[in-house]
Amino acid sequence: MVYNFSAGPGMLPVEVMKQAQEEFLDWHGTGTSIMEVSHRGQHFISVAEKSVQLVKELLSVPDNYQVLFLHGGAQSQFSMVPMNLMASSQHASYFDTGHWSHLAVNEAKRYGHVDLVTDSRVNDYTAIEQASTWNQVDKSSSYVYYCDNETVQGIEFQHPPLLEGAPLVCDMSSNILSRAFDVNRLGVFFACAQKNMGQAGITLCVIRDDLLQREPFEFTPMLYRYVDHVKSQSMRNTPATYAWYMASLVLQWVKDEGGVEEMNRRALVKSGKLYEYIDASGFYINDINHCDRSRLNVVFRCHDPSLNDAFVLQAQSQGMPGLKGHRVVGGMRASLYNAMPEAGVDQLIAFMKTFEQQYG
Amino acid sequence: MVYNFSAGPGMLPVEVMKQAQEEFLDWHGTGTSIMEVSHRGQHFISVAEKSVQLVKELLSVPDNYQVLFLHGGAQSQFSMVPMNLMASSQHASYFDTGHWSHLAVNEAKRYGHVDLVTDSRVNDYTAIEQASTWNQVDKSSSYVYYCDNETVQGIEFQHPPLLEGAPLVCDMSSNILSRAFDVNRLGVFFACAQKNMGQAGITLCVIRDDLLQREPFEFTPMLYRYVDHVKSQSMRNTPATYAWYMASLVLQWVKDEGGVEEMNRRALVKSGKLYEYIDASGFYINDINHCDRSRLNVVFRCHDPSLNDAFVLQAQSQGMPGLKGHRVVGGMRASLYNAMPEAGVDQLIAFMKTFEQQYG
Repeated sequence: MVYNFSAGPGMLPVEVMKQAQEEFLDWHGTGTSIMEVSHRGQHFISVAEKSVQLVKELLSVPDNYQVLFLHGGAQSQFSMVPMNLMASSQHASYFDTGHWSHLAVNEAKRYGHVDLVTDSRVNDYTAIEQASTWNQVDKSSSYVYYCDNETVQGIEFQHPPLLEGAPLVCDMSSNILSRAFDVNRLGVFFACAQKNMGQAGITLCVIRDDLLQREPFEFTPMLYRYVDHVKSQSMRNTPATYAWYMASLVLQWVKDEGGVEEMNRRALVKSGKLYEYIDASGFYINDINHCDRSRLNVVFRCHDPSLNDAFVLQAQSQGMPGLKGHRVVGGMRASLYNAMPEAGVDQLIAFMKTFEQQYG
Repeated sequence: MVYNFSAGPGMLPVEVMKQAQEEFLDWHGTGTSIMEVSHRGQHFISVAEKSVQLVKELLSVPDNYQVLFLHGGAQSQFSMVPMNLMASSQHASYFDTGHWSHLAVNEAKRYGHVDLVTDSRVNDYTAIEQASTWNQVDKSSSYVYYCDNETVQGIEFQHPPLLEGAPLVCDMSSNILSRAFDVNRLGVFFACAQKNMGQAGITLCVIRDDLLQREPFEFTPMLYRYVDHVKSQSMRNTPATYAWYMASLVLQWVKDEGGVEEMNRRALVKSGKLYEYIDASGFYINDINHCDRSRLNVVFRCHDPSLNDAFVLQAQSQGMPGLKGHRVVGGMRASLYNAMPEAGVDQLIAFMKTFEQQYG
């Protein structure tokens, strides 16, 4: 058994992979793969409709929201959000809490003025600033953007920030389907699939109806307009059908396993164990403010940084690939998405103990 | 055996599908699926590099061209082409020869002035206008765009149009890898994968170095800039890794089968048989000018249009799905991509004869 700790594309549930393999050549007795059929035929439409329904059910999405499955990864949303929502005031507000929200800020600045609600660069992205210190959101701000879980730094919001006025837009790429949240608090949320929902190349985007009334910038490309995707039920062009199918299997798996509450319970157990071991050890370090620590991406390093590379290599050779930290922060990162069993974390901790004994 | 005549997503080579199924859970002894590993790891990088190499080899791409695998379908290129190539003069020229080039014209018009070299709407998209009647390309035109094979109407250029001055940009979505062509004649060519190269959600784009010097429009989104994709070798963000992997298998299959010359030979045999039968029959009709007929998408209808629906349904029930024509033209369409064996065409013709006997 290989426990793959990659941050994404990442490990998928064994049951999902086995089912996909079994029906790879012959989907539901049709004699063809679901990969090979038209997106406009009854077979694929049934897959698409079922997955939209599962998203609504698993996340309790109210009727005044539209569920889209769009091409590309989450970074396309870094452009689509301002291009669709910012045109009237050319003004938006962002939480800068890590690598991905910072990239989103830079992209939004190309389309208008960006205010920062917080700027966690002051603490080297080791904590989300206290709410009492947040900058007020300007009245003309067209939305407030935040990244729910910063995959690179291993920082996570505990719940959507409490703010009045502008609609909240949320990047949930690395923690979607890992806990319940109040969708009514959000105007838009999106997530690429390759972390907790399937293969790379498709992005879930959920948007509240009233935001579809906003006029995009005139120069917005045809496939970057939310309103057109809503009208065509994500089939403005040929969607990434196989990636959508894989997402449908993962969504069903989450439901079968007990839903997002159960996923949260598991995430807390898995990450809790690992943080506890790291904190008790003098050999490994995690700098993140305890109450902002991610349940999904546990970032750590050896106290002696010259040992990090050996750690990653040895772990890989023992069936635990994907532990290398993101290139901007270095060190290690254990991504504990829904598909990672608790046994994988146990094996990682056992390895960490042995490594510590060897080099400590 | 099911012969799937879908225009895309379409039939893939049986050998490719079997190999993908076999290594679905364990790619090359790694214990993980290629779908689950990081795009920045050695395993996926080897897949990516191999497929770029195969494109260069199969299509004889010179060294001054860059090979990209981008997110999304070909329609994203309808925007990316003008956004990247048109900024200096805001002027381009297009061949309007069918459904897809017409859509590309409409998208380009949002970014600048578009001249038509030809407008085949005058003949209801049943022929490509004679070269002697083409409008001259204006000196300020930044490029000349054409669609090599119009999938909806079943019209195909025999070779790149002979024109001087502006670089040619070509949509080869439905006939890529089906014949050799002189890449030096083109500035850019692109093709979505779901017709002749794999699964939906990835697009091959090949671009000549000098065109990367052009400054895109300032408002071009971060993932719509060719130059950034070239710098990052198509990894500006997480690429659609599994779709890229599937494309690599199809490319290898084309090579193993004898390359694009062999694919062309087969395409001519398959489409030749079908056109010959249609032309000899008084029961079925194809209106396309003979020398502009597509080798890949054979469009036809029953002389009595009330029989078309019955034809599609009966064929489907006999293991030949996907024959329904595109909704804008109706009738039938047999897509004969590389993966369609000659036996599939034989079976289709046999069915057409029986159907004619039954209703003729």
